[in-house]
Amino acid sequence: MMESKISVHAGRGYDILIGRGIRHSAAEHILPLFPKAERVCVVSDSNVSLLYAGALLDALRRAGLNASLFVFPAGEQSKTLATVGQMYAHFAAHRLTRTDFVIALGGGVTGDLCGFAAATYLRGIDFVQIPTSLLAQVDSSVGGKTGVDLPEGKNLVGAFWQPRLVLIDPDVLQTLSPLFYADGMAEIIKTACIKDAALFDRLNRETPPPIEETIADCVAIKAGVVERDEREAGERTLLNFGHTVGHALEKLHGYCGLTHGHAVAVGMAKLTAAAEQSGLTEPGCTRQLKLCLTRYFLPCTDPASAAEIAAAAAGDKKTTGSTIKLVLLHRIGESYVYPATLTALEQLLAKTGGAQE
Amino acid sequence: MMESKISVHAGRGYDILIGRGIRHSAAEHILPLFPKAERVCVVSDSNVSLLYAGALLDALRRAGLNASLFVFPAGEQSKTLATVGQMYAHFAAHRLTRTDFVIALGGGVTGDLCGFAAATYLRGIDFVQIPTSLLAQVDSSVGGKTGVDLPEGKNLVGAFWQPRLVLIDPDVLQTLSPLFYADGMAEIIKTACIKDAALFDRLNRETPPPIEETIADCVAIKAGVVERDEREAGERTLLNFGHTVGHALEKLHGYCGLTHGHAVAVGMAKLTAAAEQSGLTEPGCTRQLKLCLTRYFLPCTDPASAAEIAAAAAGDKKTTGSTIKLVLLHRIGESYVYPATLTALEQLLAKTGGAQE
Repeated sequence: MMESKISVHAGRGYDILIGRGIRHSAAEHILPLFPKAERVCVVSDSNVSLLYAGALLDALRRAGLNASLFVFPAGEQSKTLATVGQMYAHFAAHRLTRTDFVIALGGGVTGDLCGFAAATYLRGIDFVQIPTSLLAQVDSSVGGKTGVDLPEGKNLVGAFWQPRLVLIDPDVLQTLSPLFYADGMAEIIKTACIKDAALFDRLNRETPPPIEETIADCVAIKAGVVERDEREAGERTLLNFGHTVGHALEKLHGYCGLTHGHAVAVGMAKLTAAAEQSGLTEPGCTRQLKLCLTRYFLPCTDPASAAEIAAAAAGDKKTTGSTIKLVLLHRIGESYVYPATLTALEQLLAKTGGAQE
Repeated sequence: MMESKISVHAGRGYDILIGRGIRHSAAEHILPLFPKAERVCVVSDSNVSLLYAGALLDALRRAGLNASLFVFPAGEQSKTLATVGQMYAHFAAHRLTRTDFVIALGGGVTGDLCGFAAATYLRGIDFVQIPTSLLAQVDSSVGGKTGVDLPEGKNLVGAFWQPRLVLIDPDVLQTLSPLFYADGMAEIIKTACIKDAALFDRLNRETPPPIEETIADCVAIKAGVVERDEREAGERTLLNFGHTVGHALEKLHGYCGLTHGHAVAVGMAKLTAAAEQSGLTEPGCTRQLKLCLTRYFLPCTDPASAAEIAAAAAGDKKTTGSTIKLVLLHRIGESYVYPATLTALEQLLAKTGGAQE
């Protein structure tokens, strides 16, 4: 079995292992990291747990650990403080101590929730990521951002808390629906756009590379960014390309009917079109981006108006005072931070015709 | 006005300023630290806010900040995730961004809750501590431990998050009841016991030093420990002297009827008596300790049995696997960590006769 290993020098340092079928040897990879552990909780949602939790729990128990399972209803609507509270109660009932650990087995919501609970239970316990969606494999499982939604906005609560290990098995993607596959492709295209023109080219070849190679490419890029700027004081902001408008759209859609990746795709397309019209991005860039998004079944438009988007973006975490850090492309593969007021964002978006664009 | 300044090299580094009446110049001390801030929330409880919030809000507003006040019902029963959730909603409604900050104005509960909310809102915003109880002034406002209680135990949820500034005004202690004054004295006596025999002697003089000197002594000792071991991997454990048994007693009392300081006092007395009987602490130490506790109106006994205490200690954060890190005294001023099983803790406590002692 071919495996890739990427080491991340953030937190206490950790490895990301990528390999087809690696989930079957998860216990062997995990156990050596926690020689003092007696107990572990696996956190998963109501979909993923049915597919993969049983085998993982069996393997952990065979290895001598007292393993329990916490399951929550699948979906972004579970990403609340109430779910985190239930998780804490489960950890306490299972008597987890500071030498024990938890495992996030699932997509982005699972990783964000479980990571936040790990960051804050007993003021911080260790956790392992086993991401099962493409989006989580290429993006959210790496870098230590954890989060919980509030009624007022997505991920408004959270912590920076690095995992001790990330295990990525591309074979589990076979059970993903095309919608959720596209969801992850949006973050892959984003990564190529901001940092790697060669990756963008490969994605647009007649025969793109196998998905495990693309995952490894994205993870390596993200790991580099996170190492250089763990707490998003500078370069890490670039990873938010498409996200300011994307988050605003998710909010306008009431966090249903538009997945994160689809919202980011629209966000990248809208902002790049606006920036190109204003001379802030090289001509032709929008066309390349939209062709790529379309090829991977991702949307480029949304009926929301410039004013609606700017208003919804006001509560974004990247806002400081009245300024928001937009990420724009110089060209495919090169990005920069462009601080703007919310009024300037609205004017920028309005140039593309808003709903008509 | 005499002021003491103690600089702490933890987090991004911060100062602790101690001075009678310093609360009247709080805004002048705070503002220069946050040149980009436009908004601030003051967090306080239903008692303290009536005494001190008005003047602080006025001063912040005169300095040009958009300042709001979040008040919660006074008491440990407010130290829940529900209160933190309400705080997040207030922060969001007040549109705090990452360049803004919050101020904890109150005792230990206020500092712990507000600190936790600051640590996790937008993945971490700045906060200032203005502790108004003796316990918070000498202990909980320094060192960056934040926490929330769960039904399963105290402070089971939390984060390490250092303040940007701590302002200690001993004048506010004049409004403290004798019960809460004694509450803080327990942490002062603890600090002397584990680290500073000379401070212990001063506390037992016919005329003890003015309280501001004692506060400065305790804060300096704690700051040193925190600098050397911010995340409690070693030396910081010593600060938990009296706390394992103390927390167990608080739990057995249902977190009412026994304050934290009173519980810690009993914990120190019980464990030291047990350790002295077992030859783990120098003879005579228990007598010195109990005389000092009694002088400051603190209790040395509790009817709980050794078995009850050991059972209640099982959920303690200092437990790892089945081992708990007890803190014992060699002698007054010198302490050490003594890892024990819960069974050993029970046997140790039983030697002193449990309820009869």
